[in-house]
Amino acid sequence: MIITKRIQMAKIIDGTQIANDIRNELKVKIDKWIQEGHRPPQLTAVLIGSDPASCTYVKNKMKAAVEVGINSITKNLSPDITEEELLQVIDDLNNDDSVDGILVQLPVPGHINERRICNSVSCDKDVDGFNEKNVGRLCLDMNTLVPCTPLGVQELIRRVGVDTFGKNAVVVGRSKNVGMPIAMLLHADGRNDTCAMDATVTICHRFTPPEELKRYCKLADIIVTATGVPGLIKADMIKPGACVIDVGLTRIVNEATGKAKLVGDVDFEGVRQVAGHITPVPGGVGPMTVTMLMKNTFIASKNLAKKSLPKNEVEKVRQGTEQGNQNKNKKN
Amino acid sequence: MIITKRIQMAKIIDGTQIANDIRNELKVKIDKWIQEGHRPPQLTAVLIGSDPASCTYVKNKMKAAVEVGINSITKNLSPDITEEELLQVIDDLNNDDSVDGILVQLPVPGHINERRICNSVSCDKDVDGFNEKNVGRLCLDMNTLVPCTPLGVQELIRRVGVDTFGKNAVVVGRSKNVGMPIAMLLHADGRNDTCAMDATVTICHRFTPPEELKRYCKLADIIVTATGVPGLIKADMIKPGACVIDVGLTRIVNEATGKAKLVGDVDFEGVRQVAGHITPVPGGVGPMTVTMLMKNTFIASKNLAKKSLPKNEVEKVRQGTEQGNQNKNKKN
Repeated sequence: MIITKRIQMAKIIDGTQIANDIRNELKVKIDKWIQEGHRPPQLTAVLIGSDPASCTYVKNKMKAAVEVGINSITKNLSPDITEEELLQVIDDLNNDDSVDGILVQLPVPGHINERRICNSVSCDKDVDGFNEKNVGRLCLDMNTLVPCTPLGVQELIRRVGVDTFGKNAVVVGRSKNVGMPIAMLLHADGRNDTCAMDATVTICHRFTPPEELKRYCKLADIIVTATGVPGLIKADMIKPGACVIDVGLTRIVNEATGKAKLVGDVDFEGVRQVAGHITPVPGGVGPMTVTMLMKNTFIASKNLAKKSLPKNEVEKVRQGTEQGNQNKNKKN
Repeated sequence: MIITKRIQMAKIIDGTQIANDIRNELKVKIDKWIQEGHRPPQLTAVLIGSDPASCTYVKNKMKAAVEVGINSITKNLSPDITEEELLQVIDDLNNDDSVDGILVQLPVPGHINERRICNSVSCDKDVDGFNEKNVGRLCLDMNTLVPCTPLGVQELIRRVGVDTFGKNAVVVGRSKNVGMPIAMLLHADGRNDTCAMDATVTICHRFTPPEELKRYCKLADIIVTATGVPGLIKADMIKPGACVIDVGLTRIVNEATGKAKLVGDVDFEGVRQVAGHITPVPGGVGPMTVTMLMKNTFIASKNLAKKSLPKNEVEKVRQGTEQGNQNKNKKN
């Protein structure tokens, strides 16, 4: 007698497809915005030096901008630029009414203080959400520009239809651009402006002992991992049916063939046999990050248009356009 | 034969005593600061209306200020003050070089936007740590004025000598003034400016199901609860030897006698038979909050003194005085 054990494989979350859907929706909204008489949203990327990875990232962002109807410019600056000169460039962009979103591609060269640069971007144009004031607003659940990767993770979970309300979630990694804001969006109150997800959230990190990491993951209905440690999350750490979002992105070179490939934090082949939903790497969170940058640029553009109007005109515009993070989580 | 089961009772954390110790240390430092030729630190409280609880809180703060050598003034304002008038009062205090710390007693009357008021206090004088920019800095582990209750909880845990590095902690309650910043100080990287505590942290809240709350608490080496739900944390939820910090403070009136008493979130008599350390209510976290306000005022005072010096004098002052949050967590 042959016993066949049927394994129910996880549904693979197609980040590329979902990101495309959102870009198509955005394109429709932006076209409508332009038809209503507004100029196209405008995104300026500031790229310092010629690091190949940074150049590729910026190029991909600019390509996505064109696709959705956002005008974009890349300002290429010398790697020898001084901090003061860079601050002046950003200040000029802050004061330029034709610019809606400013993106300073990180990392900046070592002689420049990254935090000072992030804080110098006007909060209204801070489409990366890295200004410390915008970070504060996010952590207070206030309407703000949310960093793109956390926003993309939130959107993925929502579009896949995974329930988070009162569920157990684990965030692995406590980086300030990814892990921390994701923990904020997962645990906080869905009735507030960030439409957070009301999960019970455990933040694990490099000092969480492996057996404790396993214990917390085993309890989790949702796992978001962002560590850059390939293979960290294994099948025996997963609660059957859990939703596993892999933000990790590590380039691994096969020494024999010399070929490189990108991998996440999750042992994909193992985990997909236990989980209910799983993101692939690449093709999961990555495309969402770029798409959320487009969403943020459009939000910034609408907010700035409102600000430049006389007060009695603001209400009309508000009624006619979408607000950032408008769709409040309904409790039921 | 009589079998005696010996119960090892938790060590009660004497918040009043620890707060007194810190005030004595502060007084010595402030005396020295004044002997070095600086004027005494100055704290201005803004009290709107005459709510009895608010009046008592402010009075206690002013009393503590006198004890440690901080000059203090209470500005009593009419409950009918407009938001614009209040903003003007705060702006005047921001621009007054004789004022180091500004404390707006919350809550403000309903016709005034609390968030707008908190944000109007200069970040340098924001001794409550409620300005959104300071919240952002805290969440980024940067040097800032940390809200007094979270800072007091951190200091209590440290002074009691409870190890947090890589340990399991639970924060019950996700309020923005208490739960959220405590979760930040507990989970983040001890090598950064906030000297955070490197614990694995689970944030539980009103939508965490009771059985899950129990499960997470049972795993925790440290529990910090701040919900205002009396009796929420019971003996059967505690890991033997855990450290239990009770930030809850609820006034309960005995209907028969009409007498009122203050209680926390923890079933004290039950939990003390399981825990290793426990804070009483009152006499635990409460006295620490007021003391941390004094600490913040002195930090603000020193920072402002440094700012007003010519640059070449700053180094001398820095060498002679303590920095806020100076004692970095050493890894071992």
